[in-house]
Amino acid sequence: MKKYSKFIPVPGFKAAGVYCGIKKNSNKKDLSLIYSEGKALSAGVFTTNKVKAAPVLINMEHIKNHNTQAVVINSGNANACTGEKGFEDGKNMILATAKELNLSPTEVLVASTGIIGVQMPMGKIISGIEDAALSLSHNGFEDAAKGILTTDSSTKTVSIEFDLDDKPIVISGMAKGSGMIHPNMATMLGFILTNASISKELLETALRDSVNNSFNMISVDGDTSTNDMVIILANGKAKNRVIDNMDENYMKFKKALDIVSTELAKMIAQDGEGATKLIEVDLSGAKTKEDARVCAKSIIASSLVKSAFFGSDANWGRIMCSMGYSGGDFSPENVEIFFQSKKGVIQIVKGGMGLHFNEDLAKDILLEDYIKIMVNLKDGEYSAKAWGCDLSYDYVKINGAYRT
Amino acid sequence: MKKYSKFIPVPGFKAAGVYCGIKKNSNKKDLSLIYSEGKALSAGVFTTNKVKAAPVLINMEHIKNHNTQAVVINSGNANACTGEKGFEDGKNMILATAKELNLSPTEVLVASTGIIGVQMPMGKIISGIEDAALSLSHNGFEDAAKGILTTDSSTKTVSIEFDLDDKPIVISGMAKGSGMIHPNMATMLGFILTNASISKELLETALRDSVNNSFNMISVDGDTSTNDMVIILANGKAKNRVIDNMDENYMKFKKALDIVSTELAKMIAQDGEGATKLIEVDLSGAKTKEDARVCAKSIIASSLVKSAFFGSDANWGRIMCSMGYSGGDFSPENVEIFFQSKKGVIQIVKGGMGLHFNEDLAKDILLEDYIKIMVNLKDGEYSAKAWGCDLSYDYVKINGAYRT
Repeated sequence: MKKYSKFIPVPGFKAAGVYCGIKKNSNKKDLSLIYSEGKALSAGVFTTNKVKAAPVLINMEHIKNHNTQAVVINSGNANACTGEKGFEDGKNMILATAKELNLSPTEVLVASTGIIGVQMPMGKIISGIEDAALSLSHNGFEDAAKGILTTDSSTKTVSIEFDLDDKPIVISGMAKGSGMIHPNMATMLGFILTNASISKELLETALRDSVNNSFNMISVDGDTSTNDMVIILANGKAKNRVIDNMDENYMKFKKALDIVSTELAKMIAQDGEGATKLIEVDLSGAKTKEDARVCAKSIIASSLVKSAFFGSDANWGRIMCSMGYSGGDFSPENVEIFFQSKKGVIQIVKGGMGLHFNEDLAKDILLEDYIKIMVNLKDGEYSAKAWGCDLSYDYVKINGAYRT
Repeated sequence: MKKYSKFIPVPGFKAAGVYCGIKKNSNKKDLSLIYSEGKALSAGVFTTNKVKAAPVLINMEHIKNHNTQAVVINSGNANACTGEKGFEDGKNMILATAKELNLSPTEVLVASTGIIGVQMPMGKIISGIEDAALSLSHNGFEDAAKGILTTDSSTKTVSIEFDLDDKPIVISGMAKGSGMIHPNMATMLGFILTNASISKELLETALRDSVNNSFNMISVDGDTSTNDMVIILANGKAKNRVIDNMDENYMKFKKALDIVSTELAKMIAQDGEGATKLIEVDLSGAKTKEDARVCAKSIIASSLVKSAFFGSDANWGRIMCSMGYSGGDFSPENVEIFFQSKKGVIQIVKGGMGLHFNEDLAKDILLEDYIKIMVNLKDGEYSAKAWGCDLSYDYVKINGAYRT
């Protein structure tokens, strides 16, 4: 398997990213289009927030269709809390896209990200869709990856190449998160394309499982957005024997998909609003997978842990505490905690109690911008990873005063 | 009922607060003692954190006893993640107190707050207990209220006077939260005394219910401490007919207790680390009490909502969003949201959508230091209140670099 930190074009797919005037800055792009030349299967995972943006509600229906050939995405406006009008606007984005590409509306998905509670500038958006349809190309993916961004500091793309039945397979993904020009919440969107041939059922299973261990294991600020979604399209152009049971080929496909999901998730955590550090929790020794997930995620979501890492402070008590209120089961008196970065590794906690550790080495390790917290619960065989960022002055600044 | 924002002495109780050397600054107090001259019933509510400090584990046993005559509290060290040694130290604090006051150890409770994972300086603490026992007085409550503080900017005390069966009743409370000299987590402690005569069973019921609607409805940073506890002692000195069923007298007692709990809880929220504003969520129209509680608490706990209030930004989308991921049930399309402060009241959301509101008036309202967010879910008859503070640069500063 070969990994690239750019978006390798996937055979049979085209894309475009244009500026249509939703954002104030015309040097940016704010409307993207992804198009499959032939029929493609889709699967999606959507926000669990009860307040769902119009595009999420629409896609939850359209994703059931057995052919999905286009995804239209705008940035700068989330089309959330926009009522009936917002729902109509989402439908109209789909109708305009379907018309341009000669598709049925149910073959089109839609996504929006940006400010909440403001009606969509539909004239600009419809013009943007027309422009984007004309600009579609096999090399348009970098533009498309730009068109889905808000306050992200850079595009987030990754690709994996591998073989199935000697056929070359590509899985390429793009994502956005976690900030906005007029930030309202850390919306995240992910779009993954592949030429692999796979049944819709297994595509759904693979995506759901992969998202659980990647996008669902990151936290910038604990706020689950109204607009979150991850969508995968598979057009089968590789002509591999269709993956329709959980055989070796499925495992290979799943492994590649996991790398794409995990890399994109880490890019989002690293680019969290105000973040100065990427923090990885590598938790092992849990009694169950769920205990491992719950404890790992609770560490990464704690404001006190995040603040301590901003200050490069080896404050392990907060890590113990955050696992303690997580709801995950473990024996506090067994816990071991290590900190690791490229400056080295240091054990901080053994048997649930603090060790006399070298504070200078700990500081050196924590001053790095990619830090691993390794926790061993010494209670069982299960493990989980989670990713997050530190909580900085800039998070407060970005989120304190940027709407008005 | 008459309310005082100081600690009115409760007949039959003495207290003291001394400096014994746990804190670096000898102008502070770091050991407090509360003593009941006669037999007293107790009830307590303790942290749900799986990582429980030694004093919490000890009290959960001792609180079952039918007589509790003393509570010894130190600040500056939390006695958490201190293993077997910490447990012995907690027990020894109790033994020393029992010896000084001629009590059985099971008649004494213990509480600690401060840094995590550091062993207790027991020599200093035992001397402190001896000093405190000698200093006990009917007017020692303000000193005791000082001895339980860490980075709190002031003492937190409140008293209610009322009559039961023409007997004068006092309920007085003190609390600490939420910060530390070497902060590790926002520990909160609360101690409430009364001369009312009430059965142990109803004292427990009243306290649990009161804490649920007060201390359990505040959030500074979402991190539940290893040391949280609220304890009430009732010595029956008022000679009112013992409250042993849920009659009118119970309701009166409960109402007074609710005021004490709520006022102390609000003081903690207002004095949250780095806080510049007290935010009150007044949520009504929920289908069930639990939906009301869950939605109200989720608003107050959201880092994005807290940051917006720091910036006096009328960012209602984040309020909708935080209720959406709370797990509480409601219909987004019914929601109404208002902001209120002494500058006025303004409706921001109707039918789940934003109104065109006066941004200048909204800013004026939000620039105040006590702001109410009024949410009507228009879905039912239940309501709940929750309290929190804004998320400021100073929260990050206080928690980013103060351990080392």
